[in-house]
Amino acid sequence: MNERSMKEIYYADYLQLDRLLNSQLPESRRHGPEAHDEMLFIITHQAYEIWFKQILHELKSVLAAFTVTPLDEHSMGVIVARLERIIAIQKVLNQQIDVLETITPLDFLDFRDYLIPASGFQSVQFREIELRLGLGVHYQYPVTGRLRAEDVAYLREVAGEPGLFQQVDAWLARMPFLRFEGYDFWESYHEAVAAMLAKDRRSIEKNSLFSDAERNAQLAELDNTRRKFECLLDPAGFEQLQAQDLFHLRQTSVLSALFIQLYRDEPILHLPFRLLSHLMDIDELFTAWRGRHALMAQRMLGSKIGTGGSSGHEYLQQTVDKKRIFKDLFNLSTFLIPRSSLPPLPRRLKQSLDFHFTGEQSS
Amino acid sequence: MNERSMKEIYYADYLQLDRLLNSQLPESRRHGPEAHDEMLFIITHQAYEIWFKQILHELKSVLAAFTVTPLDEHSMGVIVARLERIIAIQKVLNQQIDVLETITPLDFLDFRDYLIPASGFQSVQFREIELRLGLGVHYQYPVTGRLRAEDVAYLREVAGEPGLFQQVDAWLARMPFLRFEGYDFWESYHEAVAAMLAKDRRSIEKNSLFSDAERNAQLAELDNTRRKFECLLDPAGFEQLQAQDLFHLRQTSVLSALFIQLYRDEPILHLPFRLLSHLMDIDELFTAWRGRHALMAQRMLGSKIGTGGSSGHEYLQQTVDKKRIFKDLFNLSTFLIPRSSLPPLPRRLKQSLDFHFTGEQSS
Amino acid sequence: MNERSMKEIYYADYLQLDRLLNSQLPESRRHGPEAHDEMLFIITHQAYEIWFKQILHELKSVLAAFTVTPLDEHSMGVIVARLERIIAIQKVLNQQIDVLETITPLDFLDFRDYLIPASGFQSVQFREIELRLGLGVHYQYPVTGRLRAEDVAYLREVAGEPGLFQQVDAWLARMPFLRFEGYDFWESYHEAVAAMLAKDRRSIEKNSLFSDAERNAQLAELDNTRRKFECLLDPAGFEQLQAQDLFHLRQTSVLSALFIQLYRDEPILHLPFRLLSHLMDIDELFTAWRGRHALMAQRMLGSKIGTGGSSGHEYLQQTVDKKRIFKDLFNLSTFLIPRSSLPPLPRRLKQSLDFHFTGEQSS
Amino acid sequence: MNERSMKEIYYADYLQLDRLLNSQLPESRRHGPEAHDEMLFIITHQAYEIWFKQILHELKSVLAAFTVTPLDEHSMGVIVARLERIIAIQKVLNQQIDVLETITPLDFLDFRDYLIPASGFQSVQFREIELRLGLGVHYQYPVTGRLRAEDVAYLREVAGEPGLFQQVDAWLARMPFLRFEGYDFWESYHEAVAAMLAKDRRSIEKNSLFSDAERNAQLAELDNTRRKFECLLDPAGFEQLQAQDLFHLRQTSVLSALFIQLYRDEPILHLPFRLLSHLMDIDELFTAWRGRHALMAQRMLGSKIGTGGSSGHEYLQQTVDKKRIFKDLFNLSTFLIPRSSLPPLPRRLKQSLDFHFTGEQSS
Repeated sequence: MNERSMKEIYYADYLQLDRLLNSQLPESRRHGPEAHDEMLFIITHQAYEIWFKQILHELKSVLAAFTVTPLDEHSMGVIVARLERIIAIQKVLNQQIDVLETITPLDFLDFRDYLIPASGFQSVQFREIELRLGLGVHYQYPVTGRLRAEDVAYLREVAGEPGLFQQVDAWLARMPFLRFEGYDFWESYHEAVAAMLAKDRRSIEKNSLFSDAERNAQLAELDNTRRKFECLLDPAGFEQLQAQDLFHLRQTSVLSALFIQLYRDEPILHLPFRLLSHLMDIDELFTAWRGRHALMAQRMLGSKIGTGGSSGHEYLQQTVDKKRIFKDLFNLSTFLIPRSSLPPLPRRLKQSLDFHFTGEQSS
Repeated sequence: MNERSMKEIYYADYLQLDRLLNSQLPESRRHGPEAHDEMLFIITHQAYEIWFKQILHELKSVLAAFTVTPLDEHSMGVIVARLERIIAIQKVLNQQIDVLETITPLDFLDFRDYLIPASGFQSVQFREIELRLGLGVHYQYPVTGRLRAEDVAYLREVAGEPGLFQQVDAWLARMPFLRFEGYDFWESYHEAVAAMLAKDRRSIEKNSLFSDAERNAQLAELDNTRRKFECLLDPAGFEQLQAQDLFHLRQTSVLSALFIQLYRDEPILHLPFRLLSHLMDIDELFTAWRGRHALMAQRMLGSKIGTGGSSGHEYLQQTVDKKRIFKDLFNLSTFLIPRSSLPPLPRRLKQSLDFHFTGEQSS
Repeated sequence: MNERSMKEIYYADYLQLDRLLNSQLPESRRHGPEAHDEMLFIITHQAYEIWFKQILHELKSVLAAFTVTPLDEHSMGVIVARLERIIAIQKVLNQQIDVLETITPLDFLDFRDYLIPASGFQSVQFREIELRLGLGVHYQYPVTGRLRAEDVAYLREVAGEPGLFQQVDAWLARMPFLRFEGYDFWESYHEAVAAMLAKDRRSIEKNSLFSDAERNAQLAELDNTRRKFECLLDPAGFEQLQAQDLFHLRQTSVLSALFIQLYRDEPILHLPFRLLSHLMDIDELFTAWRGRHALMAQRMLGSKIGTGGSSGHEYLQQTVDKKRIFKDLFNLSTFLIPRSSLPPLPRRLKQSLDFHFTGEQSS
Repeated sequence: MNERSMKEIYYADYLQLDRLLNSQLPESRRHGPEAHDEMLFIITHQAYEIWFKQILHELKSVLAAFTVTPLDEHSMGVIVARLERIIAIQKVLNQQIDVLETITPLDFLDFRDYLIPASGFQSVQFREIELRLGLGVHYQYPVTGRLRAEDVAYLREVAGEPGLFQQVDAWLARMPFLRFEGYDFWESYHEAVAAMLAKDRRSIEKNSLFSDAERNAQLAELDNTRRKFECLLDPAGFEQLQAQDLFHLRQTSVLSALFIQLYRDEPILHLPFRLLSHLMDIDELFTAWRGRHALMAQRMLGSKIGTGGSSGHEYLQQTVDKKRIFKDLFNLSTFLIPRSSLPPLPRRLKQSLDFHFTGEQSS
């Protein structure tokens, strides 16, 4: 405090602008006149990296909150708010592609050669984000000599820690609502599902716009769905869904997530519902980013090899879908049934999911 | 059901595309060759109007939920989600200005004269949105002969019903947490504020970058703030704040809103906190829309009179700030104090704000 | 005029709000209480459809401009501006997905069954946009009984007319700059390419971070690139590139497009350069839209069948890449060479690409 | 080259991530436990600053291009592209506000006191952008002791150099098209204007929805417009428009800008037209940014004093309109007349505005 009173804080010092604004050194300068657009290339990538730092700052705090068991109800609002912040940042990341694309392919060629073999694949922070989100469960990067030994070591360390996917899995698996004082929710759910599928079958059968071949295909698909439902509720069957790459979460976690989706208006489930929604938003926004990134690589380089030596567009394009981390939650919608078919919760369970402020809102 | 099984639903019928896509009749066609850009002018305004219909659909459902007293905890999640939907629509409305601005001023002149005296001021739905949000509390439109008698009558009727501002005011005024089993929160708050202001005074006094004149101005400002706090907590004083146009809400409502902001991490307050935040988001997005609208009018017409006979840009510009509906909530930040100075809540009150699921999360 | 002076134009009449705002009839109303979110479902789709109408309005005017040969230089600015307008609209279309996603999967189930078998696949306008852009060259929709006979007939008719892809192909093929007074640009280009590839080879060979296997892979890729360049400049070889699905444009068109990219700063080539860029923007934005649409379908339905009977997500996902219309222009970047290696244009040709305003800008 | 072959370029080195990612030092750490949100506060401001650096990079290159007289036609495309890049960056800057607003007022109070008296008013780069755009012509910052002496000195130096506003003014004033081989465009324009105003008068007179008072007000406004037109074309009168703050450009510049707007489809005028449009876009986007910034300050602080000692919201709000740099171009629309009334250009002048590629587009 004393020290501070002697030295007034100044905007430029607080933000360390001296370092920040002197950290752009175009390679092209070393080979002749500076390529005008290389500055934008550097600054956009730097903007990505400082936002990655911020995403990690949020992500780590969320992961820390999840290590407390049982999860403190007071931290649910904070977790949800921080996921929303990550989402807000992702929208900036996507918007930044519009800026990067103002570099035309021809302008990029003015300095591209000087960057070989550096490449965005070497962004340690981006890989750390992927790992901390839980990518390791779904996707293994090919072994690569392109990262420095210390970077590889750091990422291996990160890979050894549980990511958000794993923490959410554990949290969902612990959730206590599914069996309550002798009531087994999943029994009533099973009956409700059977009724719904029967109805779907009738709607396919009476759809006169279908040719016989189409109708049969639909009915086969419906049988497939029915089998999936059976698998969902049966431990041995669930392993088949996992083998089909439909789920990577544990069975109890998938069932808890389903319960949250179905009864989200119960006060105690509202923030858990938002949490799951935001995990899907994050997945969508990264997927959109990867898709646009792949297109941009193609626009810049066609089928040329990228500066990092990969064939760029094709690699990026092919991995978009493989790198989706929370696809389980999307697949979950397969198992939702309409509210009208939903089994009502026992009164005592329902009360347990509500607030109990006695003096509440005298009108 | 039987009727339906006879007539298969078809996309174009469901959306009534026959009507929808034949409802664009450029005026310029009646005066010579069609002005190419008039179609965009019509379609953009139509897009606004159908989104206005949707906003009203959401707004009315939210208002209906507020008429239930006490407010059902199960509807809080729904209310918040519908406000979020309005926000998502507002972002589309703002984005649409980019499309409208592809009409250049010169292109607009190709058909502008044919539209006189029609004008966006005649959008009954937009005025209804303003009224249902609660604009009537803050702003009265000048009496105008430009609306049809039946439209004036309808808007008068709407103006007679409570808007969102008024409903939120009533809901906040009813909130029960502020006095609890003999504990008066506002007494401890008063003490905490006094401590904080003393600290602010010291930080101004020791700021060596200020000239004497600047420092005195700051200290005067701080005294002003102290007086405002006193006004806040005192019924007679609060009337002064209202007279200064700082607040239009009731005193008890302002205090409840403040309590929600301060203790938002208590589970029972989390959705109320989101609700207040979203009201500010809605205010910001409409304000941004009005601001862009005013600029667009200037870009299109300079200081020409608008088609509706008003001087366009100037009128729009001057009313941007007058039409802010939830400015009270922004002004509320004046009265926040840092979490570190916040008085702790009594243990029994704190418990009352939490969930009580007994079997919760066995780890 | 007389008629008009008798009847003042009124905002609501001009926009036909009576029809427009009474064209939303939720199906759920016919089966019980209205599902609140069906209104949003209808209105969002209607917003899409009126924007589709606008896109077609622009697209048709652009196609009409292209039927004039030679293309009037005065219409280039107009064409480019209208493509920019389409882009602005596409950004609104993408933004609208955020609104649609506020319908949660569970809310969707409240009315989904009533919509069967209607489906977005039945949007005639969207298919018309695809056809008028030129999709027919790249992709054939599977034969389907899901469209009404008159809609199928209309789309067949549209499919018979040249789309934007075909018109641009013809325009590029006509472009006269490539051979000029005995100068053959492509000869000098061929030499420049050879020099560049030699340089690339050296950069791969000396890259010590590559393992031998990686280096060999890169060199093989480079040979591949060299062969592609040879194919590009040789009529027989070009057919191979077409067979590899790299190009659907004619060889002369591809070469003209390349020339435009390389010499875009010549005044006469600047608008053609923008035109090509915007075709890529349109391709990117529709691709992004399709990608998000596929994700949304998965989020809503998991692996359930869609209302139109298709398996939704998977179909949408698989066709994203197949429906890209201007991929040729992206692939073109494969054949760009750095400005520093670019052969200078003969002086007389260069002059021909410039303005000749004699009194220009006396300083 | 040799040096480079010894040291392979690595992504992290190229972007200087070591410095970049170690330049965030929250003040709150020095006073106790770190306030979680201060990291976001720092990183968002740093993101702003590196984008400001990029905007300056583009702006300076545009200003340099303008120092060449006559302006090289080959640089017009480059200038326009760089303004478009600034616009793309501005959209990111505006999007970043959404991220910053995830800091709630209460969270901000966790570290706000530690930042006093630092403030965004001390951003030297932002002020430099304003000056290089030409703000100095329109607005003088109040004298302030809050900037360091060297920063004040630097900004004074920048203020002494011509900004974009001034360079565009000079370029427009030099434009040669307005008088051409004895033809005086402005004479025929004057006649066309007289005809248009007579028509406007008739449309007001016959508007039966106006009360007499309204009609008289409109007619008075129209007389006002007629007088403005007279002022526009008369050197002495133009000084009145300048005195009314309608224009800061020279008369000849305003007339050139008007000519460009009116005949933008002539090939030689197309890029100048885009340039003027983009200056308006830049003005709009900075104005939108200032507007949102003012709202955010109010949301964060209410009517508290800001960290820099100013009353925040009010100051920001009041200066939004005062800091508009290219408002002249918006006001210009006052003087546009419909294309149908536009005097045709003499044939020889028209030819001079076109390309003359002889072999053009053999069909």
